[in-house]
Amino acid sequence: MRDHLTRYLPIATWGREYNRTTLSNDLLAALIVTIMLIPQSLAYALLAGLPPEAGLYASIAPIILYAIFGTSRALAVGPVAVVSLMTAAALGNIAEQGTMGYAAAALLLAGMSGVILLGMGLFRLGFVANFLSHPVIAGFITASGMIIAASQLKHILGINAEGHNLLDLLISLVEHLPETNWITAIIGVSATGFLFWVRKGLKPALKRAGVRSGIADVATKAGPVAIVVATTFAVWAFGLDARGVKIVGEVPQSLPPLTLPVFSTDLVRQLLLPAFLISIIGFVESISVAQTLAAKKRQRIDPDQELIGLGAANVAASLTGGFPVTGGFSRSVVNFDAGAETPAAGAYTAVGLAIAAVALTPLIFFLPKATLAATIIVAVLSLVDFSILKRSWSYSKADFAAVLATILLTLGIGVEAGVSVGVGLSILLHLYKSSRPHIAEVGLVPGTEHFRNILRHKVKTDPKVITMRVDESLYFANARFLEDSIQDRVAADPDVRHVILQCSAINEIDFSALESLEAINNRLEEMNVKLHLSEVKGPVMDRLEKTHFLEELTGKVFLTQFEAAKVANESCDQLPAS
Amino acid sequence: MRDHLTRYLPIATWGREYNRTTLSNDLLAALIVTIMLIPQSLAYALLAGLPPEAGLYASIAPIILYAIFGTSRALAVGPVAVVSLMTAAALGNIAEQGTMGYAAAALLLAGMSGVILLGMGLFRLGFVANFLSHPVIAGFITASGMIIAASQLKHILGINAEGHNLLDLLISLVEHLPETNWITAIIGVSATGFLFWVRKGLKPALKRAGVRSGIADVATKAGPVAIVVATTFAVWAFGLDARGVKIVGEVPQSLPPLTLPVFSTDLVRQLLLPAFLISIIGFVESISVAQTLAAKKRQRIDPDQELIGLGAANVAASLTGGFPVTGGFSRSVVNFDAGAETPAAGAYTAVGLAIAAVALTPLIFFLPKATLAATIIVAVLSLVDFSILKRSWSYSKADFAAVLATILLTLGIGVEAGVSVGVGLSILLHLYKSSRPHIAEVGLVPGTEHFRNILRHKVKTDPKVITMRVDESLYFANARFLEDSIQDRVAADPDVRHVILQCSAINEIDFSALESLEAINNRLEEMNVKLHLSEVKGPVMDRLEKTHFLEELTGKVFLTQFEAAKVANESCDQLPAS
Repeated sequence: MRDHLTRYLPIATWGREYNRTTLSNDLLAALIVTIMLIPQSLAYALLAGLPPEAGLYASIAPIILYAIFGTSRALAVGPVAVVSLMTAAALGNIAEQGTMGYAAAALLLAGMSGVILLGMGLFRLGFVANFLSHPVIAGFITASGMIIAASQLKHILGINAEGHNLLDLLISLVEHLPETNWITAIIGVSATGFLFWVRKGLKPALKRAGVRSGIADVATKAGPVAIVVATTFAVWAFGLDARGVKIVGEVPQSLPPLTLPVFSTDLVRQLLLPAFLISIIGFVESISVAQTLAAKKRQRIDPDQELIGLGAANVAASLTGGFPVTGGFSRSVVNFDAGAETPAAGAYTAVGLAIAAVALTPLIFFLPKATLAATIIVAVLSLVDFSILKRSWSYSKADFAAVLATILLTLGIGVEAGVSVGVGLSILLHLYKSSRPHIAEVGLVPGTEHFRNILRHKVKTDPKVITMRVDESLYFANARFLEDSIQDRVAADPDVRHVILQCSAINEIDFSALESLEAINNRLEEMNVKLHLSEVKGPVMDRLEKTHFLEELTGKVFLTQFEAAKVANESCDQLPAS
Repeated sequence: MRDHLTRYLPIATWGREYNRTTLSNDLLAALIVTIMLIPQSLAYALLAGLPPEAGLYASIAPIILYAIFGTSRALAVGPVAVVSLMTAAALGNIAEQGTMGYAAAALLLAGMSGVILLGMGLFRLGFVANFLSHPVIAGFITASGMIIAASQLKHILGINAEGHNLLDLLISLVEHLPETNWITAIIGVSATGFLFWVRKGLKPALKRAGVRSGIADVATKAGPVAIVVATTFAVWAFGLDARGVKIVGEVPQSLPPLTLPVFSTDLVRQLLLPAFLISIIGFVESISVAQTLAAKKRQRIDPDQELIGLGAANVAASLTGGFPVTGGFSRSVVNFDAGAETPAAGAYTAVGLAIAAVALTPLIFFLPKATLAATIIVAVLSLVDFSILKRSWSYSKADFAAVLATILLTLGIGVEAGVSVGVGLSILLHLYKSSRPHIAEVGLVPGTEHFRNILRHKVKTDPKVITMRVDESLYFANARFLEDSIQDRVAADPDVRHVILQCSAINEIDFSALESLEAINNRLEEMNVKLHLSEVKGPVMDRLEKTHFLEELTGKVFLTQFEAAKVANESCDQLPAS
């Protein structure tokens, strides 16, 4: 019972150890994260095409639900850039931004994503996320960062532009460029420039000025808040909204509302793939942040329980006027660095944001959208990393191909196409590689019992005996390749009387491969050649012993290759020359 | 030049060695195969829903083209049961049987299949066929055999029935059962019974009667011809066609006509998946027959060239009034057993069939369709083999699942669904298995240098050193599982100071796994634990040396696990207790 409780309710573990020190550490972390999250939440709502308050709502209830069900002690859940972009892309096909239908679809999307994550957690299907290879994720994040940055340029310039891929966006931007509102552009460009400087130049400058490192850090984090305050004040003071600068405007002063997603089979069908991709990508982003932070304190993360935590968070988002959420990198790192010790820090952050939603929203009436766009651009451009192309190219052409395809398709067609094709291509390339495994013909290194590739080493061989070592598990995709390779080798050399298959690298033999081995055995028998196996691993041997293969095998199974080669040589000597 | 010539034109190899002995052997084989093929060709045309002459035409030009381009010396190309069934299923969605549109679509299907095969051959894409695992093929063949047999029952009973899956067929048969034509049923059932007896009982009976084995064989092969002659005579003599027995009727007396498939993008799109599946399944059936026969004479088969041979044969079928063809099992075995030595035997068979098409077609006017149906049923029921379920169950549950899914879907929905889902499921299950690889914690077997699983053997371990052996290549699908496993193990045990990854079973590390290793290394460093590698294979090490990983690695790379454990232990002794 206790085990079940702690498995499904991690709060039961850390709750018992809670004391005054953890409380004060958590409270301090919560304060810092709350200040950072206010502009970020508004900005990601803008990116998702939703009203600004949705960003605050999506950061309140989800954080609390994750605190109860999640296993990471420092993960901060809420809207993040990539998932917000995917939300906008999914909803863009369904309704106009700003309509009730759009907001309703966002709730449904969060709800579906939550149910998918919960289902995967309960049925322990977290492994599905493993098929998102690192090259695909890296390519997708880089391409998404570029699309997000491009999508915010319209706010920076005060124009309209649409499109869910880079090309459409850029064309639309160029078309509307003459409509640029210059005051908006001045605010947007200077906010962007300021934030870049805060990120890159402020801390070194403060340090040179002799400011303590801790204070310099806080100043850096406060940059976005400072620019929000400054530009809001400027718009209010000079009445810039009357001169065409778009502002956030009236935001309801309220706690998150109770919302019930509208259900329609048609809508569910349309949102199924996006919801699935959002779930998987959100999960992958979240789990890698969680594991990196957990390692720093030798804590463990349970991936299946993480699915439940994130699922609950998304269901909460859909019931409280939010949109899809996940564990974010920057907010989690800030939370961790600020000293958060338990998920309770998240709950305090939620309280802070709830206070902000109730009390502070009138203050952001004059906040220019260009400022929010600037914070998004500066945040996402740090995600863009083309070095992955170079690194994967030098390591493996197949991985490079997956990165490149994902980047090009995400930029050229859209996020869903990019991820889907990237995943499909990774799987195909992996299968292709393992379908043509490395097969080495080996011989004895003189004076030892070791066998090595005859092409790489000076080794002793016997013309009547061939030893082949397959450096791959045998399964359907390479079973026929093995048949071809052995048949080719033996057909080309009429002297051969024994074939030894050295199985030291074979971790599995599936049913197809078993039948191929039977075929090889029978065909070699037709050619008057015996088939032997050597160094078969324990689990593989256990399997083979359940079949008739070992009885039908014309040769023997040897524990070591040395023994196999010795016996085969001797039996050759006894045979009359063929 | 010579190399290129013999690669793409295998005829150049065997043509030079052709002499009088091979000629007479080939001629005899051709005669036997021709006699066997006449009823079989007519029957498979019936199965494909085409007029009987199409079966003859599909056996003439394709044989010759294969003789020129194929690498097998005994393979006989023509209509086969499974491909004919797939043809009927593909065309059934497009046109009514018996219409011009239906026959035209059959030509297009053969042409597309030919182009696909040629393309795969030229670009050496034969490996694609590897993804049809043995369980999927076995399940598909068994289910197809049942559907084909069921589809022929309507001819046996002289009723109408339709459906491309077993359920639809059986329902339709039961509905029309009252319309049974009893004379047809008597012919059909007795022909089926006779053929079964010929197959199972005749040869033993003849042998008991002292007849020589060779003659008994010929008698067995002649069974279908005998029943064709007998039932045709009966229909003619008693005017049974006037009493409702459906007969083959008028067959044009002509050589294969020149036909040009009609091209329409819409039709091409509809036929693309069927054409692809027909190509792959035909290729797989053909290549396994070819390799089995080649092994008996120590000959080799070039799979890529086989694609070209089969592709050319299908293009020929589409240009001469045929339908999709491939290398058939029974006809090839008969050809081989009859002594065929070179593909020229196929060409002589083609001449024999051409003569039959011109001269013998009037003789089959009164041949009852029920007799052809009987030959099909007897032929395909030998394909039905449910033992695959039992064998795969006892060997591997994953393979069993693939067989079962393929059988159920093929029977319940249709051939295309069965194969597609079967292949998808095989791939998924394979990825799933390799996504949770066997990871053993190993220790030193006392008195040796060997390391074995601590759960299976009595071994020596050091509380500060963990050695883990992963029995699988590391790639994206299992990279995160490795991260989880190591982090879990180390987080659970605060004494650990060294983790050694024994890489003896790791044949590949892809880019995702490399990044996971980097993450593991960094996270272990945060925990003050060193990561070492041992027994890294040559090609894997070559790859790693191109990266920064080895520089960043906190520990070392050791040639042997023994050395790694020794050094790790010693460095532990020097450390102060933590």
